Amino acid sequence: MTDSSILVLTTGGTIDKAYFDALSEYQIVDSGIPELLKEARVALPFRVVELMRKDSLELTDADRTLIASAAREAPEARVVITHGTDTMTETAKVIASEVPGKTVVLTGALSPARFAETDAPFNLGMAFATAQTAPPGVWIAMSGQVFDGLKVRKDREAGKFVAI
Amino acid sequence: MTDSSILVLTTGGTIDKAYFDALSEYQIVDSGIPELLKEARVALPFRVVELMRKDSLELTDADRTLIASAAREAPEARVVITHGTDTMTETAKVIASEVPGKTVVLTGALSPARFAETDAPFNLGMAFATAQTAPPGVWIAMSGQVFDGLKVRKDREAGKFVAI
Amino acid sequence: MTDSSILVLTTGGTIDKAYFDALSEYQIVDSGIPELLKEARVALPFRVVELMRKDSLELTDADRTLIASAAREAPEARVVITHGTDTMTETAKVIASEVPGKTVVLTGALSPARFAETDAPFNLGMAFATAQTAPPGVWIAMSGQVFDGLKVRKDREAGKFVAI
Amino acid sequence: MTDSSILVLTTGGTIDKAYFDALSEYQIVDSGIPELLKEARVALPFRVVELMRKDSLELTDADRTLIASAAREAPEARVVITHGTDTMTETAKVIASEVPGKTVVLTGALSPARFAETDAPFNLGMAFATAQTAPPGVWIAMSGQVFDGLKVRKDREAGKFVAI
Repeated sequence: MTDSSILVLTTGGTIDKAYFDALSEYQIVDSGIPELLKEARVALPFRVVELMRKDSLELTDADRTLIASAAREAPEARVVITHGTDTMTETAKVIASEVPGKTVVLTGALSPARFAETDAPFNLGMAFATAQTAPPGVWIAMSGQVFDGLKVRKDREAGKFVAI
Repeated sequence: MTDSSILVLTTGGTIDKAYFDALSEYQIVDSGIPELLKEARVALPFRVVELMRKDSLELTDADRTLIASAAREAPEARVVITHGTDTMTETAKVIASEVPGKTVVLTGALSPARFAETDAPFNLGMAFATAQTAPPGVWIAMSGQVFDGLKVRKDREAGKFVAI
Repeated sequence: MTDSSILVLTTGGTIDKAYFDALSEYQIVDSGIPELLKEARVALPFRVVELMRKDSLELTDADRTLIASAAREAPEARVVITHGTDTMTETAKVIASEVPGKTVVLTGALSPARFAETDAPFNLGMAFATAQTAPPGVWIAMSGQVFDGLKVRKDREAGKFVAI
Repeated sequence: MTDSSILVLTTGGTIDKAYFDALSEYQIVDSGIPELLKEARVALPFRVVELMRKDSLELTDADRTLIASAAREAPEARVVITHGTDTMTETAKVIASEVPGKTVVLTGALSPARFAETDAPFNLGMAFATAQTAPPGVWIAMSGQVFDGLKVRKDREAGKFVAI
């Protein structure tokens, strides 16, 4: 394995949702990803860039183009993207066509990272390992599994990602 | 990626330490790994076998032989082993010579899984992803990094694993 | 202090909010109060009754009458009520006029109990202690403070309860 | 109720235990009490003084005299003391004879505050409420209950405090 740097792009999604009592509503807030990586005692060099704070149902084509550009133009060859789960596979398709030669892993969470019970740190760990061990291409790390980013869908009712 | 099953062997270590007030001491207890995998919403088939509950400084040659046998004889081709960090690399050597043709990933934690702040779920996520994406061999997933199991050491003072 | 039983009535509110990925929304769910009391290792006899699961902005006069009846008719002389914070003081007024001779303590949370960072267990601890130490009347335990239930308001902007 | 300030004296004990991987042992560390009070969103004025970091089995007569002096000489009339559970009742006796006219509440935890599952925030909430609502004297807030500090013992086998 190499020890080269990992770029983490955060885009929002459930993983970064918090609750605001003053508004009695949940909103996506400043990313908790740096805190998760500190808690995980990650000693590998990494860089976190907060691109946007959106529910993935609200992501536009322009947003996806921006995400792909940020991944493509970065010096790092290994990229982890935290993303809402509902349209994660759509962004994976854009990445597949616009970011050649890099290992890009999308991940997120079904339960917010700020919850006591959450899949966020496990999923982020999967993404970090996949970024280091998988060949160039687009991968999705969710539900305990590493999927080819173009051969997976979210089964909303079952609450998990499944291969197609 | 394949969706074939993962075998998880638990052997003890800091990851499974808890505090017993009645004794005013910490001990390794029943493994918290199944709970972590449930919280991570792992949908991939897996099986957890609790082999022993030992601090890794107390592991004997016989213990390591038992761990290697359990990995070798199991039907699963992908094995995750949770293990104390102090002698993780010694067990990796035994696995390397006695478990051919399988992808075996050792992981553990520097802070117990029962702590509010812990590297346990992140590390377990790394191990699960590595078991699915790395070629046969022995790997160690710690400190945010996936290492060749034969080319890594624990830097006790720095509190992290480093490549050698 | 006496060791007589405490009745806990749950009515909903932020303290019991969770996130449902399948709906991409937060809802009040089955009460986490019994789990909190178990984690707190409460050895005092208590009984938990889930009355309703409502945001306190949605509580009707009939709901408040029901809450007051449940407190008044119960055999316990000490009652803790978990409640949404926005109209907690309105329910306190109804309790004050309809539940004579009992020590009733309302509490809740500004951050859901299921969050990693939450005021829920601290507030519930304040409520349990107040139920045991305060004279009959209506009390509100929030923001680290025990208030006369008729002389307090929620300062929504400041995110805390203040005496009036 | 009054809104006058609360003094929090920390002395160590299980509530402040953490694990040090470099030493493979648990030690009492810098107090997590300020963090707990922040998480609980305590708006009441308070002051935290770290007196010592000791397991309560190691407390000497001189230590108890120091704790009592700190409580007696402080300007605050309401004092919360976090303390190891094994000799909490011994310190209560010293406080009872040496700190007249103040409401002093001792509390602690059977499971460290840094654990995911802990009685620490609930117990601290009980102590804060008792400091505000109980008359002058010495109280112990543990096991979901507020005890007269001179009429309670720890039942080590049962893992709880019981009235005597």
